[in-house]
Amino acid sequence: MRTRQWRHRGVAVCLLGLALACLPALAEEGMWTFDNPPARQLEGKYGFAVSQEWLDHVRLASVRFNDGGSGSFVSPHGLVLTNHHVAVGQLQKVSAPGKDYVANGFYARTAGEEMKCPDLELNVLLSTEEVTGRVQGAAKAGMSDSEALSARKAEIAKIEAESTTSTGLRSDVVTLYAGGEYWLYRYQKYTDVRLVFAPEQQIAFFGGDPDNFTYPRYDLDMALFRVYENGRPVASRDFLKWNVSGARPGDLVFVSGNPGSTDRLGTLKQIEAERDVMIPDIIQMIRRRLEILHRYAAGGTEPARQAASQLLSLENSLKVYEGEYAGLRGQDLMGKKQKEESDFRAQVAARPELEASYGKAWGEIEGAVAKELTRYRQLRYRSLRGSRIAALALSIVEYVAEIAKPDGERLDGFHESELESLRFRLLSPAPVYPKMELVLLAGSLEESLDLLGPDDPFVKAALEGRSPSETAGDCIGRTRLGDPGFRKALLEGGAKAVEASDDPAIALARRVDPAFREIRKWMEGNVESVLASAGEKIGLARFAIYGKGVYPDATFTLRLSYGTVRGYPMNGTEAPPRTTFYGLYDRSYGFGGKPPFDLPARYSQGRGKLDLETPLDFVCTCDIIGGNSGSPVIDRSGEIVGLIFDGNIESLVGDYIYNETDNRAVAVHTAAMTEALVKLYGAGDLVRELESK
Amino acid sequence: MRTRQWRHRGVAVCLLGLALACLPALAEEGMWTFDNPPARQLEGKYGFAVSQEWLDHVRLASVRFNDGGSGSFVSPHGLVLTNHHVAVGQLQKVSAPGKDYVANGFYARTAGEEMKCPDLELNVLLSTEEVTGRVQGAAKAGMSDSEALSARKAEIAKIEAESTTSTGLRSDVVTLYAGGEYWLYRYQKYTDVRLVFAPEQQIAFFGGDPDNFTYPRYDLDMALFRVYENGRPVASRDFLKWNVSGARPGDLVFVSGNPGSTDRLGTLKQIEAERDVMIPDIIQMIRRRLEILHRYAAGGTEPARQAASQLLSLENSLKVYEGEYAGLRGQDLMGKKQKEESDFRAQVAARPELEASYGKAWGEIEGAVAKELTRYRQLRYRSLRGSRIAALALSIVEYVAEIAKPDGERLDGFHESELESLRFRLLSPAPVYPKMELVLLAGSLEESLDLLGPDDPFVKAALEGRSPSETAGDCIGRTRLGDPGFRKALLEGGAKAVEASDDPAIALARRVDPAFREIRKWMEGNVESVLASAGEKIGLARFAIYGKGVYPDATFTLRLSYGTVRGYPMNGTEAPPRTTFYGLYDRSYGFGGKPPFDLPARYSQGRGKLDLETPLDFVCTCDIIGGNSGSPVIDRSGEIVGLIFDGNIESLVGDYIYNETDNRAVAVHTAAMTEALVKLYGAGDLVRELESK
Repeated sequence: MRTRQWRHRGVAVCLLGLALACLPALAEEGMWTFDNPPARQLEGKYGFAVSQEWLDHVRLASVRFNDGGSGSFVSPHGLVLTNHHVAVGQLQKVSAPGKDYVANGFYARTAGEEMKCPDLELNVLLSTEEVTGRVQGAAKAGMSDSEALSARKAEIAKIEAESTTSTGLRSDVVTLYAGGEYWLYRYQKYTDVRLVFAPEQQIAFFGGDPDNFTYPRYDLDMALFRVYENGRPVASRDFLKWNVSGARPGDLVFVSGNPGSTDRLGTLKQIEAERDVMIPDIIQMIRRRLEILHRYAAGGTEPARQAASQLLSLENSLKVYEGEYAGLRGQDLMGKKQKEESDFRAQVAARPELEASYGKAWGEIEGAVAKELTRYRQLRYRSLRGSRIAALALSIVEYVAEIAKPDGERLDGFHESELESLRFRLLSPAPVYPKMELVLLAGSLEESLDLLGPDDPFVKAALEGRSPSETAGDCIGRTRLGDPGFRKALLEGGAKAVEASDDPAIALARRVDPAFREIRKWMEGNVESVLASAGEKIGLARFAIYGKGVYPDATFTLRLSYGTVRGYPMNGTEAPPRTTFYGLYDRSYGFGGKPPFDLPARYSQGRGKLDLETPLDFVCTCDIIGGNSGSPVIDRSGEIVGLIFDGNIESLVGDYIYNETDNRAVAVHTAAMTEALVKLYGAGDLVRELESK
Repeated sequence: MRTRQWRHRGVAVCLLGLALACLPALAEEGMWTFDNPPARQLEGKYGFAVSQEWLDHVRLASVRFNDGGSGSFVSPHGLVLTNHHVAVGQLQKVSAPGKDYVANGFYARTAGEEMKCPDLELNVLLSTEEVTGRVQGAAKAGMSDSEALSARKAEIAKIEAESTTSTGLRSDVVTLYAGGEYWLYRYQKYTDVRLVFAPEQQIAFFGGDPDNFTYPRYDLDMALFRVYENGRPVASRDFLKWNVSGARPGDLVFVSGNPGSTDRLGTLKQIEAERDVMIPDIIQMIRRRLEILHRYAAGGTEPARQAASQLLSLENSLKVYEGEYAGLRGQDLMGKKQKEESDFRAQVAARPELEASYGKAWGEIEGAVAKELTRYRQLRYRSLRGSRIAALALSIVEYVAEIAKPDGERLDGFHESELESLRFRLLSPAPVYPKMELVLLAGSLEESLDLLGPDDPFVKAALEGRSPSETAGDCIGRTRLGDPGFRKALLEGGAKAVEASDDPAIALARRVDPAFREIRKWMEGNVESVLASAGEKIGLARFAIYGKGVYPDATFTLRLSYGTVRGYPMNGTEAPPRTTFYGLYDRSYGFGGKPPFDLPARYSQGRGKLDLETPLDFVCTCDIIGGNSGSPVIDRSGEIVGLIFDGNIESLVGDYIYNETDNRAVAVHTAAMTEALVKLYGAGDLVRELESK
């Protein structure tokens, strides 16, 4: 399933900001911004003239799940469709011992039964406005890289604050084309979101970790929420009409969603560093965490229930990084990258004015990457991973310090425009599980001790001579951060209250904060600013040579992809364009019904009710990546024909390259959703709402 | 499907004879002779004590299809089960315009409807006897390699002739362990074989060329023959009882059949020559032939029917060689081979007596391979490929010349013990299709002209200055060889009649025969004899170091493999141990029923009759290779639980290496055969016969 954590590069935001522009997109490649859709390709290849009305309608029907994922309005009454695996965090949070909505699913037969999500924020992109001139103009001639970076950041904060004040909308300045363009994106934000329907996880995620990121698939990875405003369902005028026939082989289709991040044009040296150091390290880290969590989950039904969504997410990430790692070690990908880079550099070198302005950028990046690698471990392991208590404590300690500064000088994540969403998350009433917190925090401290040694300032400050498990035991045992009211009091009390608090989690966060800040500051001064400046040069060189027939790397903002419903060559044969319910039963019985190929009782007992020929999942050539989970698949007329939930194993190198031959997005077919809702869930009312025009 | 043509090495028989002994078999590797079963492994790993009775029963129930393939007796009344794709040549031969048994299947509801096959010979291995002493003793000290080879060949011919005379049985001396052992195998031979049942090819070979050599599969690749003797069904006392429950995941199972050939321990230099020269060349050759045949088949229903089985066979071969080629270019395989060879050579070098006797063998082989490559093209393209008329003409011309010589001096294929089978094939009443013959012969001559040039003696003699199409047109237009009676007269008339014949095909064969013989003789003197002698040395060295805990390379003689029913890691996920009828419908509807994923009407209309949960195909770790097609899968109690019909794509490197992780044999499940016979074919009588005890 297409979600992803921990970008494997410096501080997450650093190389995200460095997103490089791409070579002119061929084939069905590309995650296009709505201001620059691939109109020429659509017209030329499919005879499809994309209209502004079509684009506006699709944009306004598209929903961003702020904690990572996409979705869309599918009824005029605020119904939002996304994946079960995007919803699973909320499902877990509304569950409780004996009420396991993750495993058993949920269906609100009446409005009254719809269940409020504790901390889910949805965004709809209302408008975009280019602000390149203001941001680029902030960096004056003669400034150092570091000064220029600060100046641009300050200007961005100013633009965002102005917009928030004047419109009341969530306002983010988005860096595209490595700083070649800056855009102000304004979002309608929804925080009263209620759960309407989710199937059993075993059918949403049938085949479990083995089948994850593969195809053929047989998953009903769907969930439905309803957006409320002022206590009533929002009137969602721009919703996607439900096309029950769904996608057909050969159809032109679109995906509108929020791809998280790509590195399609990182320099070779950057990619080599990821291949040789960062990705192998992340893989080890995920394995260690999985081991800890599996051990905890093995303790019984209740621990297993608590750990389920985190386990899912870790296994998902492991498969992503292992797939990328395998792809990067294969000759094909690096060979292609090498050729692209040398062709590009040759063209720069051939034009003296470009060579003079931009020619040194590759060398500068190489230097910055080499520098980053000298402190790479500190960057990664001065960290408290996995524990929600520790994450809350750190955020609170940073929050009170950051909001005291001018907006332009704050750490990313604490700008004025982001605070409301942040507070919403920090005050979430979602339950905390102390025993699980304990093993996760102890594991994280243990890892830092092992990998940084006892003399690292972070380790010293965190442990103060005690063992990781003592420290974690004390911290989790006595903290009151599980209580949202306690958190609220600290936030309202500000720096003074936080400073004075004797809560052991807050104390831990206070102790490690300086070591955090030290490595971040070092990274910013020594790596990030160089990468930003050199990356911008490469981006501008690319514009100069290839023009704007390119798309920017993904930035978890709204993009449009296009492609066709089509199978692909797989393991010596052909993967079909779609699967059917027949295949679900074949795969389950082929494994003798053993987990993760077991069927929920509803499906094993109810198979006689289903038309087994109904298409279940399908693949298309649309270019997607983690963050696109839950994106609608849309046809020419703007109707919804499917629901993205994954990419195939061949797409795992998609962070670096798009290969039309076998890169495929995997989607649930609308016919299957309709069939299951009506025949197995008795959710005819819901289907009638979906089919309303 | 596991059949294979054209061994890609010198003359087919040459390196077959060179089959090298293997390293001690680990895991579930190995194609064991019945005199040396893997008793220790079976006892140790499975607690299964294999008895002589069990081995004898399985051996006597096993059937060799003399034109390539395996089968087994499955009733006391001579019923033999094999694959549809093993039967397809015969199905094609008994078909006629408007009576397409290949496409439509066949079922003889009464004994009277059973249809005699024109030229099918089945063999049952009645006894084996070691004759190593006699054969090795024939080569005296002081003989050259060439003289030694001749002496051994003469002795082998003598042993075979003696046995044929004294027993009346087909008697073959088999070279095992590269001449480390020689065994006399005596066969009961059956030539009155009648077709009882075959399903539609589209269900036997569902998924066609794309799915061929892959898994998961959904094929009912079965056919049933009945063996007659003296006009009545033979009483087959040793038959395999039909186990309708069939193979279960985790079961210990056995495969008894006739793997064609392997090169598990060719030297590195030999494998490199195959990788760099021979296999790429064969792939080109198959592609050229496919192009010619596809063009012919596109001419209409009847040409398509005529070309079907040859197309099938060519596409099958192409997939095999492309799979091998990909495997050989990957680093894993060659790296492992390199390590094996250097370990082995180090052990030889460490023992002076071994080094003295055998140490030079690798260098000798390297020299012979280098020599072979100098005339490799002549070896391959002094040939008339594809045309049945040309093949018959050449065989007749050679036959009358060879039988005039003492047995020991004849070309392989013409020894006294082989003549009866040869005559049976030469006099086959199977139909000949002149238009197809024409394009195949013209294509073959064209290819020889292109690749050898107009001055090659073979090309000169074949064309006599005319064009390939003129030559072929004249030859096919006027030949009478399509008439079995005409062939009979030539064989009976002997050298004189053949010499005097003005039949243009015979004349063509007479003209090219000297160039054939020249290159064969050169190969024998310069390559084959050296390879035989050096190969034998390496074989003996291997015996000295590893003992007899090894199995010989495959030689299209009866072997026993063992393993478990087990899935495997595939393309990022797990392949299931078995499939079901559900999957057949999923895959067909997934492709919208488009060929080769279309269903015979019986299956699309009859799906309601089937219990779709019935296992259809399954995989096991048994070590098989081309020639094993049609082999029974047998359980501990000697009952039949499945029917081998293919290997997966990962097994295509099996010629060189066995990899337990993902090398799998693919089989039809007995439950699926039973279910289809009863529910879809109304063949309850047949199932009652199968279930007789």
